Amino acid sequence: MSDPVLSPRDVAFQLYEVLDTESLTQRPRFAEHSREMFDAVLDTARGIADTHLGNHRKKNDAEEPRVVDGKVVMIPEVKAGLMAIADAGFISSGHDADIGGMQLPHSVTGAALAYFDGANCATTSYAGLTAGAANLIEAFGTQHQKDIFLPPMFAGRFTGTMALTEPDAGSSLSDIRTMATLAESGVYHITGTKIWISGGDHELSENIVHMVLARIKGAPEGTKGISLFIVTKKRVGLDGSSGELNNVTLAGIIHKMGWRGTTSALLNFGEHGTCVGYLVGEPNKGLSYMFQMMNDARIAVGRSAMAMGYAAYLYSLDYAKTRRQGRIPGEKDPLRPPVTIIEHADVRRMLLQQKAACEGSLNLILVCARLMDDEATGATEDDRTRARLLLEMLTPIAKAWPSTSCQEGISNAVQVLGGYGYAREYSVEQYYRDNRLNQIHEGTNGIQALDLLGRKVTQEKGAAFTALAALMSAAVVDTPPELAALGEAFDAAIARLSATTRSIVGAMMKDPARGLANATAYLDLTSRTVYAWLWLRQASVAQRALAKGAGPDTAFYQGKVQTARYYFAHELPKTIADAALLDGVDTTAFDMAHDWF
Amino acid sequence: MSDPVLSPRDVAFQLYEVLDTESLTQRPRFAEHSREMFDAVLDTARGIADTHLGNHRKKNDAEEPRVVDGKVVMIPEVKAGLMAIADAGFISSGHDADIGGMQLPHSVTGAALAYFDGANCATTSYAGLTAGAANLIEAFGTQHQKDIFLPPMFAGRFTGTMALTEPDAGSSLSDIRTMATLAESGVYHITGTKIWISGGDHELSENIVHMVLARIKGAPEGTKGISLFIVTKKRVGLDGSSGELNNVTLAGIIHKMGWRGTTSALLNFGEHGTCVGYLVGEPNKGLSYMFQMMNDARIAVGRSAMAMGYAAYLYSLDYAKTRRQGRIPGEKDPLRPPVTIIEHADVRRMLLQQKAACEGSLNLILVCARLMDDEATGATEDDRTRARLLLEMLTPIAKAWPSTSCQEGISNAVQVLGGYGYAREYSVEQYYRDNRLNQIHEGTNGIQALDLLGRKVTQEKGAAFTALAALMSAAVVDTPPELAALGEAFDAAIARLSATTRSIVGAMMKDPARGLANATAYLDLTSRTVYAWLWLRQASVAQRALAKGAGPDTAFYQGKVQTARYYFAHELPKTIADAALLDGVDTTAFDMAHDWF
Repeated sequence: MSDPVLSPRDVAFQLYEVLDTESLTQRPRFAEHSREMFDAVLDTARGIADTHLGNHRKKNDAEEPRVVDGKVVMIPEVKAGLMAIADAGFISSGHDADIGGMQLPHSVTGAALAYFDGANCATTSYAGLTAGAANLIEAFGTQHQKDIFLPPMFAGRFTGTMALTEPDAGSSLSDIRTMATLAESGVYHITGTKIWISGGDHELSENIVHMVLARIKGAPEGTKGISLFIVTKKRVGLDGSSGELNNVTLAGIIHKMGWRGTTSALLNFGEHGTCVGYLVGEPNKGLSYMFQMMNDARIAVGRSAMAMGYAAYLYSLDYAKTRRQGRIPGEKDPLRPPVTIIEHADVRRMLLQQKAACEGSLNLILVCARLMDDEATGATEDDRTRARLLLEMLTPIAKAWPSTSCQEGISNAVQVLGGYGYAREYSVEQYYRDNRLNQIHEGTNGIQALDLLGRKVTQEKGAAFTALAALMSAAVVDTPPELAALGEAFDAAIARLSATTRSIVGAMMKDPARGLANATAYLDLTSRTVYAWLWLRQASVAQRALAKGAGPDTAFYQGKVQTARYYFAHELPKTIADAALLDGVDTTAFDMAHDWF
Repeated sequence: MSDPVLSPRDVAFQLYEVLDTESLTQRPRFAEHSREMFDAVLDTARGIADTHLGNHRKKNDAEEPRVVDGKVVMIPEVKAGLMAIADAGFISSGHDADIGGMQLPHSVTGAALAYFDGANCATTSYAGLTAGAANLIEAFGTQHQKDIFLPPMFAGRFTGTMALTEPDAGSSLSDIRTMATLAESGVYHITGTKIWISGGDHELSENIVHMVLARIKGAPEGTKGISLFIVTKKRVGLDGSSGELNNVTLAGIIHKMGWRGTTSALLNFGEHGTCVGYLVGEPNKGLSYMFQMMNDARIAVGRSAMAMGYAAYLYSLDYAKTRRQGRIPGEKDPLRPPVTIIEHADVRRMLLQQKAACEGSLNLILVCARLMDDEATGATEDDRTRARLLLEMLTPIAKAWPSTSCQEGISNAVQVLGGYGYAREYSVEQYYRDNRLNQIHEGTNGIQALDLLGRKVTQEKGAAFTALAALMSAAVVDTPPELAALGEAFDAAIARLSATTRSIVGAMMKDPARGLANATAYLDLTSRTVYAWLWLRQASVAQRALAKGAGPDTAFYQGKVQTARYYFAHELPKTIADAALLDGVDTTAFDMAHDWF
């Protein structure tokens, strides 16, 4: 048995009791499904995670990919894990049944994939990147491109990558310099260098499909001149067969603190000969296509952070319940046996922080997944628009806050284990290293903060913010009387967020640079308010279940209520300091001169 | 050149402008010294750090110690580094000149050793542990023990360890089970198992001197029955020569997330034959002896955390000033070249947090070092008592807050570098792994919180707390008019801390378990208040220097003032939420039942 990743009881609570996922089966797209089928999918995912992914999480970390004679070598378990995911249909799980997909709602795949993420983020990433690349081709490619590429990608026979970042551009995609030159045959010749390409080279698959951002010669400068290309490792024949190499050269792999099982490649395109690329969609629209994928990828980063935080929580909880050490305050008799460390209030505090972070993050990820479903299959246009707006607003939070709060959680897991938490012989230190990446990739959390305050809050005259505030206010009305104090506190929290938003948006209109200087404080404030909402809602559902008599589930529901109380006592009050900073338009960081450092 | 560790300008500012270290030369013990000699010591330390320690920090991490044929093998640079420290006299730097020491004040060695900690914590640890063991022997050993052990330890020919922790006891020293049985010859035979023994086995030195806590057969249970023993790897003759093995068996080494160059050994004593130990001092007083050393060790942990945080800060600052990426808000022209990333306000915020954490921590470490000097050499008994009380109060903070705030700082350094911060090809990810240990060893930060609230605050009728509050209040009076707003804010912060302390101590008297449940919040509250004091004092000195006309140092002093402003705007307000939690005697964590998790 591998380390457990999520609590199936909690997954069921969130999916069916909080979010009413079963109702999706009433929509035409999901009419063939049932709760039993959803549960079977979740069980399958959990089994794969346990058997084919968790089994080599540590080994994949200790024996990371290396380059031997120009080829990337890894342990064989990685390919077996990738194939287990592909064979069970999880690369194409959301796609239409008629192209080989399972046509599952995001709500269900979101939970299912989390088992993979937590069991082994590195091996899972090869499948996830392939799914992301396939989604792009499915959404924007020609029918011929779909016919050629989707079947082998869904089968795991071809894998995919996202090739955006360049050595001199990093987060600044407008500075991309990779060039695409139209050749006579209608294809493009690609030249340039990409860095940090996850899954950029390896021997796991017959071919690698790179989704490359590049500029067509003569295109406008900046973000308006970027196009999207399919560039394969090996040339692909009209029949889809892989042929000679396409001059995508591995220039090196980067060695990371964690997430070591995923190759991070430096790739040269067309350095030693012609590198053929196929335009996807229209010229100069590459960035908008990529952002569609990127929004999914950002939520996937949050899901991965949540799953690692959740796994670390379960691991340290188990340790705290079995490890005996010390005595509780007031116990003076040294002959009394030591207590299990969960008896120490400070250990329970650390476990509560973890529970609040990871279960709150799971809730957020499933809320986002549901909004993706609603955006695509909501009954009315209003429903779909509202879902889209909420998703715009919640995406930067779903990217940033699980990676931040669950890293604090994993650090607490390390601390609960003490020295053992720091030892590679135990499990939690790897989560601490692996999850640290989630604050960086797919747009750093600082970029997410700028996206939230500088773009999302003000877009469409504040419609996204208004939609979120309205949704959160509904939870106040829905609070059972036993939790009235939490409802009132949350009402005040929404009022604080709204007032601060008005004030900082006003400041930003007058002076964008100073107004945006504390974007991170705004992200923190909004995220903690959103998590308070998610916890109030979970607690309200749990409280009603308790009122009805919950039998063997009583402790489970009481835990939900108590964790909400923890969140409101320990976490939500942190928003006050952030709000004050924003209300005063603090310019301490803005005013710091370079030579004062 | 290795990566720089501290700013020499800042060290000089703190030592001479803030703390008037030069005045120590007026005390009889330091009368042979001068500022020039202090500076020469600091320069020597910096040179050793650069040449003999920083040179193999990464290599020592990548090629960690391993066991080959029962022996611990490491890279040769470790021994060279250890000998460079020993040869320059730094193992004995504080000891009397007549036993071969440099008789330096802690104030100076504290700063000097920080260069070693930041350059290579692992190699430095062999010297630091040897110094700690030697200090114990010097303080409590017989003259014969001193004659035999101190000269080879000062020379680095013998190294030392602290053998406290056992597999089933961990932080709970009262549960130590290692046994000492008096033999006819007057020596003791030691049996038992110790874990996490840093430097516990290796081939660096001719012999290893373990300072072992054990129970003499028939001793009282609990902490009152623990004695301290010298147990060597090889038997030692009356002339100090190392002879046959003493049955201290290496049972394994633990593989850590970071700090990999230091062996962490599992040792069996007397499992395969007689293991001889020599009692140090009186029976059953071992724990009080060890705590004397432990207090120094706790401040050394804080120093190490500070030095790593400082090195990461300097590294990311240099990166931020040279790496070009993106454009500032409002700049629409994609043809304008990208700016250096220090132009982004959020990057400056991350650098300010780091500067506040590491320079504040350096200040705290030097304040503690000065108090150690004052406790030992203060002019009057009142001075010495006051220094002791302040040190009691500040030690848990000096252990815990550098490791917490500088870990946040190092995380920000990682974030400033983005993907490169996550790559082992760059420097900061190792600090992130190495420093994480500092929250755990020498008493977890949770233990420090219990020590602060449960012991230090109330001891001697609150005399330690009163002394700290009085010292901090003096800084308010000393605030120049330009910083009056900070002075007022700090006055309010002291009042808040005092009121909360009264209230939580009252609650603790009524109900120790509930009162102590939020000890961590109390540690956070007190630490942030103490750092605000340290920053107010630095800013006051800087402001006065600016008023006099600081010439080329103007930017340096302005940086100090601005960082104090940052601390008061961004960090100090976080104390409000902690104070509220404590004032309300929150019992959310306390009340959480085990089966609710």
